[in-house]
Amino acid sequence: MGADASELVARTLRGERRAVARAISLVEDGAPALREIMAGLAPRTGRAWIVGLTGSPGVGKSTSTNALVKALRARGESVGVLAVDPSSPFSGGALLGDRVRMQEHATDSGVFIRSMASRGHLGGLSWATPHALRVLDAAGFDVILVETVGVGQAEVDIAGHADTTVVLCAPGMGDSVQAAKAGVLEIADVFVVNKADREGAHATLRELRQMVSQVDRGPEEWKPPIVSTVAAKGEGAGELVERLDEHLAYLRGSGELDHRRHARAREEIEAIVLSALRERVGDVHGHAALDKLAGEVATGHGDPYSAADTLLAALER
Amino acid sequence: MGADASELVARTLRGERRAVARAISLVEDGAPALREIMAGLAPRTGRAWIVGLTGSPGVGKSTSTNALVKALRARGESVGVLAVDPSSPFSGGALLGDRVRMQEHATDSGVFIRSMASRGHLGGLSWATPHALRVLDAAGFDVILVETVGVGQAEVDIAGHADTTVVLCAPGMGDSVQAAKAGVLEIADVFVVNKADREGAHATLRELRQMVSQVDRGPEEWKPPIVSTVAAKGEGAGELVERLDEHLAYLRGSGELDHRRHARAREEIEAIVLSALRERVGDVHGHAALDKLAGEVATGHGDPYSAADTLLAALER
Repeated sequence: MGADASELVARTLRGERRAVARAISLVEDGAPALREIMAGLAPRTGRAWIVGLTGSPGVGKSTSTNALVKALRARGESVGVLAVDPSSPFSGGALLGDRVRMQEHATDSGVFIRSMASRGHLGGLSWATPHALRVLDAAGFDVILVETVGVGQAEVDIAGHADTTVVLCAPGMGDSVQAAKAGVLEIADVFVVNKADREGAHATLRELRQMVSQVDRGPEEWKPPIVSTVAAKGEGAGELVERLDEHLAYLRGSGELDHRRHARAREEIEAIVLSALRERVGDVHGHAALDKLAGEVATGHGDPYSAADTLLAALER
Repeated sequence: MGADASELVARTLRGERRAVARAISLVEDGAPALREIMAGLAPRTGRAWIVGLTGSPGVGKSTSTNALVKALRARGESVGVLAVDPSSPFSGGALLGDRVRMQEHATDSGVFIRSMASRGHLGGLSWATPHALRVLDAAGFDVILVETVGVGQAEVDIAGHADTTVVLCAPGMGDSVQAAKAGVLEIADVFVVNKADREGAHATLRELRQMVSQVDRGPEEWKPPIVSTVAAKGEGAGELVERLDEHLAYLRGSGELDHRRHARAREEIEAIVLSALRERVGDVHGHAALDKLAGEVATGHGDPYSAADTLLAALER
């Protein structure tokens, strides 16, 4: 290992904040040194409990994350927070919120908060989130909260990175439960109805309960609880932590924790393999082959499968 | 070509509705016959104008699509509609809306409406949408409207499939413009403020105008217009079609149409190549190698890069 990478690994393993921040920046940049760094960190990974938080814009994700950080700190656990912005490169907003939040915990060495843009496309940087989680895991944080904005695929993807996934809703947001229906029902381990002091909270709770009850589950299977919170006032954070603890106990008792972590490692390896293969496709005749074939396909002078065959044949030579 | 595939291609090229529906079902299923079918359809592709519509749940995408279909039919153009549900496999809702819409146009042979689940992940079925668009293109539809729900990556992705991308907002939806800010600003060719008869429409318009004006553009560059509509009453559909026409004229005049289609073909070919390579990774020792490596990485006994190297080396043997 290079001396720089070696030192960064050692400092990250000691939990030095600046080293952790630097390592995550290298992840964001896709730096070549990542290989060495990930290898150095690997033996100290697999210990943190990764909790994902997701929900539509406006449900109060940052505030809920903050309330959770406080509740976890109160019982002495160290917490890393990774706020992933899937819509990149427009991450100004997230970063601003980030700075505000960081001020609150600036003097607490048991909290580390970081925003990250994730530009994952076709496996492009899809390993950025898992890599950053590895860094925080190896740095020794007991719990890692990974928070993502948006609905749709980005929201569903977060479940792939977390041990426990929390889906947040809020009353009075017409699309909140609708979005939940649209794909997050299957990924939620715990539901939160935040802003539960607002009008319509009961209706949102009722809708969610009905949705959860409609899913067929075996007697041993986890049934997602629904927690009401007013995160801005810290209300419900204690109950949320209890439900999360119960889920972790379920994960451990059922073998599901190992199962989820194994599946995650698979995806991470596959993403790296695909990325390496993709680079090789690009390398064949310096992208010129793909460009020529794309021109033919775009004008109806070729079909995408034959074009793919041509590229694959070139790869094998 | 197999006799079945050959007949399906011939019938699709004649625009027979049942053949078109069947071909899209094969796309959804990822049927092996796709290779032949796509090759057969290729010479007749590249003619349709593909218009993407996207926006948060509740902005009125289906209604707006419907209003556009009517306006385009009124001037004699045939229209194919592809409603892509990125949240799959929960496509019941979309399919229901689909059936309602299809009834309205059931006797019009110039309209074809179809929902499709898109489970694209890591390049998995990411070519389903482009393939379905190829089918509709080859079937001779003048315009293809491709509609997608959700915000975030799915919404941004639609721009990759369309010649012209329409982003819909609605007043009174707190997150509507927020979501637009978060990533769709750069993909919108035309903005629509639907439900423009509702309270808050002026504020939404103003916000959008400000957003659009803040983007630096060259003098020759397209500046996304903003159209107010009340799609449920058909209001504004005529103006929307005019703006769309202007965008198409811009695309043609600037060479941007060819550029976009070329980039699209590239992505399509790459997705097929990556998928083929991914299958090969899986084939090496029948997935067992990847599983073993994933187990090591999950428990900190290996790192993902070394695991990827092992798989890549096995591929080359």
